[in-house]
Amino acid sequence: MELSNIDMSSYPNSEKIFVKGTIYPDLRVAMRRINQYPTVKIEDGKRIEYPNAPVTVYDTSGPYTDPNYSVDINRGLPRTRESWVERRGDTLILESITSEYGRARMTDRSLDSIRFPVQYRPRVAADGKRVTQMHYARKGVITPEMEYVAIRENLANKELGIKSYITPEFVREEVASGRAVIAANINHPEAEPMIIGSAFSVKLNTNIGNSALSSGIEEEVAKAVWSCYWGGDTLMDLSTGDNIHETREWIVRNCPVPVGTVPVYQALEKVNGKVSDLTWEIYRDTLIEQCEQGVDYFTIHAGVLKKHASLVGERLTGCVSRGGSIMIQWCAIHGEESFLFTHFDEICEILNKYDVAISLGDGMRPGSIHDANDCCQFMELDVLGRLTEIAWAHDVQVLIEGPGHVPMHKIKENMERQKRVCHDAPFYTLGPLTTDIAPGYDHITSAIGAANIASMGTAMICYVTPKEHLSLPDLEDVRHGVITYKIAAHAADLAKGFPGADVRDNALSKARYDFRWKDQFNLSLDPELSRRYYLESRRAAPDSDDRFCTMCGPNFCAMRISQNITDICNK
Amino acid sequence: MELSNIDMSSYPNSEKIFVKGTIYPDLRVAMRRINQYPTVKIEDGKRIEYPNAPVTVYDTSGPYTDPNYSVDINRGLPRTRESWVERRGDTLILESITSEYGRARMTDRSLDSIRFPVQYRPRVAADGKRVTQMHYARKGVITPEMEYVAIRENLANKELGIKSYITPEFVREEVASGRAVIAANINHPEAEPMIIGSAFSVKLNTNIGNSALSSGIEEEVAKAVWSCYWGGDTLMDLSTGDNIHETREWIVRNCPVPVGTVPVYQALEKVNGKVSDLTWEIYRDTLIEQCEQGVDYFTIHAGVLKKHASLVGERLTGCVSRGGSIMIQWCAIHGEESFLFTHFDEICEILNKYDVAISLGDGMRPGSIHDANDCCQFMELDVLGRLTEIAWAHDVQVLIEGPGHVPMHKIKENMERQKRVCHDAPFYTLGPLTTDIAPGYDHITSAIGAANIASMGTAMICYVTPKEHLSLPDLEDVRHGVITYKIAAHAADLAKGFPGADVRDNALSKARYDFRWKDQFNLSLDPELSRRYYLESRRAAPDSDDRFCTMCGPNFCAMRISQNITDICNK
Repeated sequence: MELSNIDMSSYPNSEKIFVKGTIYPDLRVAMRRINQYPTVKIEDGKRIEYPNAPVTVYDTSGPYTDPNYSVDINRGLPRTRESWVERRGDTLILESITSEYGRARMTDRSLDSIRFPVQYRPRVAADGKRVTQMHYARKGVITPEMEYVAIRENLANKELGIKSYITPEFVREEVASGRAVIAANINHPEAEPMIIGSAFSVKLNTNIGNSALSSGIEEEVAKAVWSCYWGGDTLMDLSTGDNIHETREWIVRNCPVPVGTVPVYQALEKVNGKVSDLTWEIYRDTLIEQCEQGVDYFTIHAGVLKKHASLVGERLTGCVSRGGSIMIQWCAIHGEESFLFTHFDEICEILNKYDVAISLGDGMRPGSIHDANDCCQFMELDVLGRLTEIAWAHDVQVLIEGPGHVPMHKIKENMERQKRVCHDAPFYTLGPLTTDIAPGYDHITSAIGAANIASMGTAMICYVTPKEHLSLPDLEDVRHGVITYKIAAHAADLAKGFPGADVRDNALSKARYDFRWKDQFNLSLDPELSRRYYLESRRAAPDSDDRFCTMCGPNFCAMRISQNITDICNK
Repeated sequence: MELSNIDMSSYPNSEKIFVKGTIYPDLRVAMRRINQYPTVKIEDGKRIEYPNAPVTVYDTSGPYTDPNYSVDINRGLPRTRESWVERRGDTLILESITSEYGRARMTDRSLDSIRFPVQYRPRVAADGKRVTQMHYARKGVITPEMEYVAIRENLANKELGIKSYITPEFVREEVASGRAVIAANINHPEAEPMIIGSAFSVKLNTNIGNSALSSGIEEEVAKAVWSCYWGGDTLMDLSTGDNIHETREWIVRNCPVPVGTVPVYQALEKVNGKVSDLTWEIYRDTLIEQCEQGVDYFTIHAGVLKKHASLVGERLTGCVSRGGSIMIQWCAIHGEESFLFTHFDEICEILNKYDVAISLGDGMRPGSIHDANDCCQFMELDVLGRLTEIAWAHDVQVLIEGPGHVPMHKIKENMERQKRVCHDAPFYTLGPLTTDIAPGYDHITSAIGAANIASMGTAMICYVTPKEHLSLPDLEDVRHGVITYKIAAHAADLAKGFPGADVRDNALSKARYDFRWKDQFNLSLDPELSRRYYLESRRAAPDSDDRFCTMCGPNFCAMRISQNITDICNK
């Protein structure tokens, strides 16, 4: 297979840099450095160049933007973290995969053509061991993953003299307390460590995945890489169509960021979509199958209980969570409590052997403004708080998923209640959408909500694309969704006062004021698009650094006039 | 000329309705009623239809969407308000236009081909009279304009049993106090009255206009109509290129919403862009020229003073207001105080003879995150507060313009300070943009800020298009900017608890839950786009009301499953 249809040359004048570790000198933390042109001034008739410092930005694109790396998705990414895990000496490599289903798929010759070409034997914790970042953190151990994220969160702050509270020890404390999560399955050594917590920069998740009606493996891998290229921090594979197992293998092996899934989707496919046929055993086998493939976090709707079934009918839009609705239907059909809830301890004991984090799903999230902050939603949140305690007792890392559709004045209550009820576990919200009336523009209705809730402390926001409610996103939608959520996340970082967050804003604004158009584009979230918009109206002189733009024309450029004013004042 | 290139058939199943006045029975307040299909259920094997009430929405499109009106931009719109103004008996009709410049243009035969074909004699207050809505309101008079906006703001609330505080008397009180503005020049009788104030629904302004580098008259008229069609509440013509006078005449005669301008732009064109040659006399003649054409509000940068010049150089991005920078440069060149400030009383005395509102420009608005809430900005705001008192003494209505670029955590201070310093005069903000790093997506960076500041009480938000900072918007950008700002305004209305604001959200969400796809599209802000996105992935059965969509496919549709759950529970 090939990575086609995506163009990864949109970051001109950027270079990939690697910052070394101190505790672990073999760490190479990748960042993107945007170099700038000098500011040119004419002083006393002489042309003088004043250099502008490069700006270092967070880089989620992995090896794909490393000029020394040659991309081959049939081989997968380098398995950098393998040696770190090995060094800890608390894992063993299995002879073969554990899951029955996985073994059946592996030996099915009809799947040969779509199977990922390289087979890795899975790794698991040695008997009696727990291998989660939370476990190490609580033991007082700073792992390479912890130092990695500490360096990554600080960017180039050190050279700019910006003081940050983020040290490897601080990271360890945050992970130990459960306030932050490093989702890093020992079977996904291709992923670069990243951290999700309110004390850190706001992260964004993207969703991809096929449905019964669309999309093949190659397209999903392209979407995954594309999402990372533009700035997605984590990636959920929500596939529900054919060949979920194989699609996931391709994605995980080629994904430089943590991958999440909703295992109940695949479990349901295994019983041909018949909810009544779902069993704990099938679900359990699915968990192990995916743990051994390298999924970094699972959305588990264990907070949806039997008693919620009768409440669904009282809402305007019922239950809009796929996983949640499946589990409630299961409870209603069988008259039994959800097996995710009754087997929650067992789930945790599986997950801490691979270090898979739990993202506690919000099955009762509101699907409309009308249903926001209702008793269904908050009853479930209470359950999620209790489950958080249980997971933490097993050293399993926890995220809490949040709404959904919430009008602006009800956002604060969501954040405050989640913090209180879930003991400061990181909040991970879908939007929220602040109105229901704009299908086709729900990346925007939800970016408003996402920026707000993230500024209040939500650690990760899940993107919404323009196609939400209407169809599956294509590549262009993924890009548009990611950039929109980069905006929301960054606006929140500024509002939080995250150390160094304004460096890029200030550099871009200075470039704008200097009429350094190319720097303005290069420093922007989407250099290709901003440059294209500019050039469309400047066909005559595409590369000239004009001291005005078509918005105002030469006589009405306020920035140019400002500089004249300063010249007059300085005379 | 012709209105080409724009398609005004994007609102299927909508009808134009007219609500009559009570105090003034001849009022016909236009609204758009979106009719819905019934909810279909199968009960005991029988198909039963439950009707869904139509949803009435605010309609800014004017006669263009009236099936009984035949569009001809060479004739202009019906002059409905003419008789209301006439009835008041406090105005007279001039023999000819007053402005010297305007007269020169009228007799210039070389302009015949681009001149609007119909000439109207201008109307002005009779000697010693003031004809502003504020003047009448303070006298205790409820004008037809006031009853019109009261009906307009209430939409169909009465039939839905929604109680609203908005009565004609309430409108009168708000206008009398200066907390709300009805911008309604007696020479723009084509415009449908609307109100701008924090107690009312949030309004959005769009900017159009050519620059020296682009765009002709026909294109600007199309943009104006297009903006109204999608939901723009007011329109600023910011033309700075050729034939500003004639372009404006075409726009005003064809514009069903209030039109604003920045008169200093045209004044500067009159002196060939040479700031030093600007004079009060030229500016004064320009004001009268535009008052008699029917401009409804003027942005006047009278708060930018001589003393600000030296502060410009201390900012990262100086002064980014075109009008502001022109005035500071004028002050710096001449070493004199701004003529807008020194002649402010005289300006007010001109404006209250036509009822042109003043929008006090924020010449020192921050153009970057770095410059937000700095002393430049707040010094000017203090001056605007003093000017507000002066304008109100002349019965002139006032809006206060606001930033700009402001990070989220600094937005609240802007709103609170503006309210206090400017005595609750309506705030009218550009965005604000909440980060500088996303040129090409500044409709989104700013929609986040706009929704926030509007939810805190900003009365009108000025749209930003995707082309901001890069180029002039084309038709598609205008549409995208308007819809984005409709979202921000509506999200704020929900957050404010504006009476009846959630009716449309609830109807759309119910349609979504019922799988009434067509209603879902028709109720959305952009029915054409949402339908198109849906159909792109459903080519097979374009009009079927499938009980799922391509996002999840049939097995994973949470809404369908929810309904199954309710069926099970009800058994």
